[in-house]
Amino acid sequence: MTRFKLTIEYDGGPFVGWQRQDNGLSIQQVLEDAVYATVQEESMVYGAGRTDAGVHALGQVAHVDIAKPIEPNRLMAALNFHAKPNPVAVTAAEVALDDFHARVSAMGRAYLYRIVNRRAPLTLDHGHAWLVSVPLDAGAMHEAAQRLIGNHDFTSFRASLCQAQSPVKTLDRLDVQRMGDEIQVIAEARSFLHHQVRNMVGTLRLVGEGKWSADDVTAALEARDRSASGPTSPPDGLYLTRVVY
Amino acid sequence: MTRFKLTIEYDGGPFVGWQRQDNGLSIQQVLEDAVYATVQEESMVYGAGRTDAGVHALGQVAHVDIAKPIEPNRLMAALNFHAKPNPVAVTAAEVALDDFHARVSAMGRAYLYRIVNRRAPLTLDHGHAWLVSVPLDAGAMHEAAQRLIGNHDFTSFRASLCQAQSPVKTLDRLDVQRMGDEIQVIAEARSFLHHQVRNMVGTLRLVGEGKWSADDVTAALEARDRSASGPTSPPDGLYLTRVVY
Repeated sequence: MTRFKLTIEYDGGPFVGWQRQDNGLSIQQVLEDAVYATVQEESMVYGAGRTDAGVHALGQVAHVDIAKPIEPNRLMAALNFHAKPNPVAVTAAEVALDDFHARVSAMGRAYLYRIVNRRAPLTLDHGHAWLVSVPLDAGAMHEAAQRLIGNHDFTSFRASLCQAQSPVKTLDRLDVQRMGDEIQVIAEARSFLHHQVRNMVGTLRLVGEGKWSADDVTAALEARDRSASGPTSPPDGLYLTRVVY
Repeated sequence: MTRFKLTIEYDGGPFVGWQRQDNGLSIQQVLEDAVYATVQEESMVYGAGRTDAGVHALGQVAHVDIAKPIEPNRLMAALNFHAKPNPVAVTAAEVALDDFHARVSAMGRAYLYRIVNRRAPLTLDHGHAWLVSVPLDAGAMHEAAQRLIGNHDFTSFRASLCQAQSPVKTLDRLDVQRMGDEIQVIAEARSFLHHQVRNMVGTLRLVGEGKWSADDVTAALEARDRSASGPTSPPDGLYLTRVVY
């Protein structure tokens, strides 16, 4: 039995999310079906992050155990062949140690959230960014974002369905930068609560619009109450970019 | 009668190209229909570049004459409303001088061609880049590209259907640069022949693969024969990025 580490890219648009579910096609199922088609083995594919419906990945990481001997590059090519025409691609495959676990071994996760800040509708970026038509002050958003850095109880930014044992997390980075019409939010932490990045982005939008101050963000954090922070931003703009081990 | 200058972005994927045709939906038709829905006037929308089927634009420019008084920002919002759900967006609208002509007045055009150079299939960039799986040497491509700069007879890079009066054009810029897995080709000229950018990119790919030298590119140019240069690259990777007046 060999454990493989897979790096995976996908367009989350057509899927119910990473995790296998009864109500539609998941990225996990596409990969498990591709593994079966390749080596005729029913093996679970464990992902580092359980991205929601519509959320994308540039660098999701997963592991899978396979009994039949197969070269990593052959496995990658076969999985990509069998994953077609779904927008899921294995961009790297390597042999991992037996105790490597994509989720448990992860030391850090990085997300990118793309906002397109303009009045015109999206064309090429449709489904791949959040269109916000009112002008946003990215500098103010960045400044307010720094209030969330550090070890905090993030209950105010946690989805009601979140299954994490504790709402206390350490946020290492939350940078907001404008590049022309686009505003990019980069978030890094060892791990995140369910919807945490999207709830933080939805709250920072209020700051960008001038409705909220940085002090309001601090107050929302300290309230430890989901209803104290801003709305959840749509999944379209969110990308799991990297998992660190 | 007021002449408006429109800046337009589109995903070329679902269209037969910029120009109105009998065999399918064009970007021009989407815009002319949107003009009609807005002001009930049948007015031609003239584009600076007649992009082919599947070719995208970040900064196409067009002009249109409208009799009914309307503010540019109101016109832009109404055109975007009526263009839905097509992936066509007017990103800017302004009043132009009566003698402004989007195509004739243009002093320069800039194109971007995106190559993704990796073995894994495209997911998020599907239809928006050319996937080339064999490793390409972008440095060699850039060096060879410089052989095409200047005033030349570009017959070897001209589509058989090209309607330009002369095959002689001045190519101002043809830069090739690698950014990770992506290779970007930037082309600038006053104007281009039909398929010129895609034929140049298809030829540079041969250089990137090591099959051709820079001298082979010079020889292809000097042959003044379409069959002397490389194959036409797919439309997916091509973007009209800017028109200069």
